[in-house]
Amino acid sequence: MKDKAPLTYSEQLVLLDNKIAQMGGMAEHVLGLAFDALERRDPVLAERVVDLDRRIDALERDIEAQVIAMIAERRPQHDELRLIMAALRIAADLERVGDLGKNIAKRALAIAHETHPKPLMTGLRHIVEMALRQLKDVLDAYATRDAERAISVWHADRQLDNLYNSIFRELLTYMMEDPRNIGLSTHLLFGAKNIERVGDHTTNIAETIHFLVTGENLYDDRPKGDQTSFTLIKSERDAGE
Amino acid sequence: MKDKAPLTYSEQLVLLDNKIAQMGGMAEHVLGLAFDALERRDPVLAERVVDLDRRIDALERDIEAQVIAMIAERRPQHDELRLIMAALRIAADLERVGDLGKNIAKRALAIAHETHPKPLMTGLRHIVEMALRQLKDVLDAYATRDAERAISVWHADRQLDNLYNSIFRELLTYMMEDPRNIGLSTHLLFGAKNIERVGDHTTNIAETIHFLVTGENLYDDRPKGDQTSFTLIKSERDAGE
Repeated sequence: MKDKAPLTYSEQLVLLDNKIAQMGGMAEHVLGLAFDALERRDPVLAERVVDLDRRIDALERDIEAQVIAMIAERRPQHDELRLIMAALRIAADLERVGDLGKNIAKRALAIAHETHPKPLMTGLRHIVEMALRQLKDVLDAYATRDAERAISVWHADRQLDNLYNSIFRELLTYMMEDPRNIGLSTHLLFGAKNIERVGDHTTNIAETIHFLVTGENLYDDRPKGDQTSFTLIKSERDAGE
Repeated sequence: MKDKAPLTYSEQLVLLDNKIAQMGGMAEHVLGLAFDALERRDPVLAERVVDLDRRIDALERDIEAQVIAMIAERRPQHDELRLIMAALRIAADLERVGDLGKNIAKRALAIAHETHPKPLMTGLRHIVEMALRQLKDVLDAYATRDAERAISVWHADRQLDNLYNSIFRELLTYMMEDPRNIGLSTHLLFGAKNIERVGDHTTNIAETIHFLVTGENLYDDRPKGDQTSFTLIKSERDAGE
């Protein structure tokens, strides 16, 4: 028997935002932990990432269930619906960030017996830190409904892409120097790519916030992402000539 | 001035399903075209993929707008909402498939001046064909609300993963044989990974259909995906001993 009064609509909105904030915090945590697992080649830490990702998934399903219940029971109108749909969209992006963290952690398990060259891990550490900063910024922008801040996160994704591109070239050079580096470098390459994709989800969230606050879309002028395809072949051809 | 009668609720549902079917057809088309662009190293074809992906994105926004309007205006109850939310979820997965096709096509631009070794393209062709077949199957399962068929697509993802794992090993061997292969192989590796991820979205759609039809979740026993992390290091260590 329930003896609590049902939540009011605005209480439900607060609850929804709390869940998003919680999910955001967990996504940040997963990402930091996944990098630690990779750097220390620590299988126990990697397992914790997998568990945490499962909790993020459960929270997304919880948010979706709440959204459906809110729509069915409270029957919100257009503006309110936009708000609820934004929460759903952001939850989906955060769930993907959790997945990407899990992918990185799995690679930690795979390379548990390899030694890492320090410079390669330094590049990866930088890109993880940058991705985490932008994720944190965008979550703050959501909490404060700050469209300006969302725009600035959206633009900052280019820096993340630049960093990814330079790590990509570095890893390729490392592979070419010695075929024995290929296995490890391939894993780190996929790891770096996963972090670049975290940036794409952060950008998605920035777009969602911008639309939520202003009613206008940002994404038609979306900054170009991963440029490795172009730089790579160019530098290879240069090297071959 | 509008002189058409507004659509009934069931007409709107039909319209929604038509849009999903259209989006599914476009996603299949993008994927096939992206592979052709890659195989023929054809920049014009690659540009067409990018355009088509833009149309898929627009269709997803259209579906989202329709879903919001349907919820706001028709106020569907729980079961009807489940149906509408399923459409929204499937549209999001198809949008991602379009993105993955675009990523593959971009690589076609990048390797426009490289020659492909035939055997590598044969492996890629197989995995694209398999991914396309599974995508088509899952779209048919959605159209016919066939939970059994959805389950069989869900299980078939393992075959796609196996094929991806063997392509991964093949490309790594090719890199190790000659450092000059590293650039091209890296692109094909990311291309193959993109296709493996198409399989994950197909699996998501199968889960959505299963939940829609039966009300039960499939995903707790989700088949293991990409195993390359584990096989790679093992084979490397074996090779080094």
